[in-house]
This record gives sequence, C-alpha cells and structure tokens, in this order.
Amino acid sequence: MRDDERAIRELVATWHRATAEGDLNRIRSLMAEDVVFLTPGRPPMRGKEAFAAGFLALIQTHRIESTGTIEEIHVSGDWAFFWAHLSVTATPQNGQPIRRTGNTLTILRKQADGTWVLTRDANMLAVENPEQRAVPRGGDR
Amino acid sequence: MRDDERAIRELVATWHRATAEGDLNRIRSLMAEDVVFLTPGRPPMRGKEAFAAGFLALIQTHRIESTGTIEEIHVSGDWAFFWAHLSVTATPQNGQPIRRTGNTLTILRKQADGTWVLTRDANMLAVENPEQRAVPRGGDR
Repeated sequence: MRDDERAIRELVATWHRATAEGDLNRIRSLMAEDVVFLTPGRPPMRGKEAFAAGFLALIQTHRIESTGTIEEIHVSGDWAFFWAHLSVTATPQNGQPIRRTGNTLTILRKQADGTWVLTRDANMLAVENPEQRAVPRGGDR
Repeated sequence: MRDDERAIRELVATWHRATAEGDLNRIRSLMAEDVVFLTPGRPPMRGKEAFAAGFLALIQTHRIESTGTIEEIHVSGDWAFFWAHLSVTATPQNGQPIRRTGNTLTILRKQADGTWVLTRDANMLAVENPEQRAVPRGGDR
C-alpha cells in the first residue's frame, strides 16, 4: 500500500515536471489509452490522442508551470483515487501569465506491469484573478 | 457486481428525487459522514453537516430540479466510482430559473451493512446560458 502511494506521488511529480518541459511522450506514458478528462463548461475529452493534440497546441504558444498539493490518496487493489489542490500558470509568448487554481479528483488504474496510470480526471480549476485577463487599453487612462 | 451497479443507480435516482422533495434526511442517508464535495472556484466542502447547511439555505428560497445520465460505473470491491452528465435547475420564488449543466465524478464506498454511500464528489456544472442571469432593466428597452 505504501509503495502504491509513493508510486502515485511520483507519477504526479513526473506529470508536473514533464508539463513544464513540454515532454508529451512522458505525459502520454502516465495515462491510460481510454483516459477521460472532465472539465467545467466543456464536453468530456476522451482518449490519450485528444489530450496530446490539446497539449501540443497549448505548448506552441504558452509556457506552462504547475504545482500541486495532494490532499488524499486512497488505494483499493488495482484502483486508486486522489484529490489535490492545483495551480497552473500559462504564460503566452508576449503576454501576461494566467493563473488557474482549484481542485482535481483523479482515478488511477494499476497496469499488469505494476505501474499506475491516470484513467479519469475531474479538473475544477478556475482563473484566480479574472480581472487580470482584461487587457488595459491605453486610451482609458 | 451487477447488484452493486443497480444499487448505485438507485442511490443516484433517490438523490434526484429527494432533492426535488427537499428531503434532507433522505439525502443525508446517501452520503458518508466525512464526504468531501469539490466544485470550481470554491474551497472543498467537507462533511455531511456542511452539505446539510448549504442545502437547507438553498431550498428556503429555490425549487430544485435535477436530471442526469450516468456515463460509466466502475465497482472495485468496497469502492466504486461513476461519472455522469447532470442538469440542475434552481428556480427562485419570484425569478427566472437558472439551469446548470456539466459532468460529475463521484467516489462511493460500501458500508458494513452493504449499502453504498457517496464519499467524494467533483461537480463541474456551469451555468448553461450565462446571459440569462442578466436581469433585464426596463429603461433599456
């Protein structure tokens, strides 16, 4: 059990690192083929390839940094869940960073080779300071 | 396994019915004492009593109707998860209904008596037509 928890914490740390590095192949290795990502205001994103396409589009134009605190991990046989508090900052090449924070609830599955992969993910991040998104217009000042 | 899935579908149907009826005691019986509700833009809501207080405040001023489609149920021993597409309409006593739709990801636990209870819930509902929230001002017409 302790080993499983440690492995899941390492998976999360690897995810953050690979995101910052834009290492899509590494991130792909951390999720199941049939992974489903759930977010507010959007239809479910189904499958590793859908994630990969979205991630590639994002890192063309943004630098991504993320940090998180795992609040709870529960392991039950070959299944586990954890929930976490997460912050993700996306900085466009010539723009202000946008910081999103909030909670995630994630289901993991243990594969035949003993490694864990992400299989269902609920992402409840919201823009932290929505007023920062408004671009100041010089004429107004 | 089939029995567990059926029991979980019944729990969800009971939840919808009890919500419409404002039957807080019934809803309380469907969740674990240490339940955690995760939503966008808010801190985690922890515990049955926190839910009860929020629900009571809401039904003082609103009629609540909800419907949902369970997309997937997975049972693993005494733990299970399901994810669903949900619509919740809250109608204030003298106002327009506000409809929120989106996905949920929910963890359940089987108790010693064999019944299932909700233990972790990620709610990603968003207002369906945000412009409906704007109150028309007579002078503008």
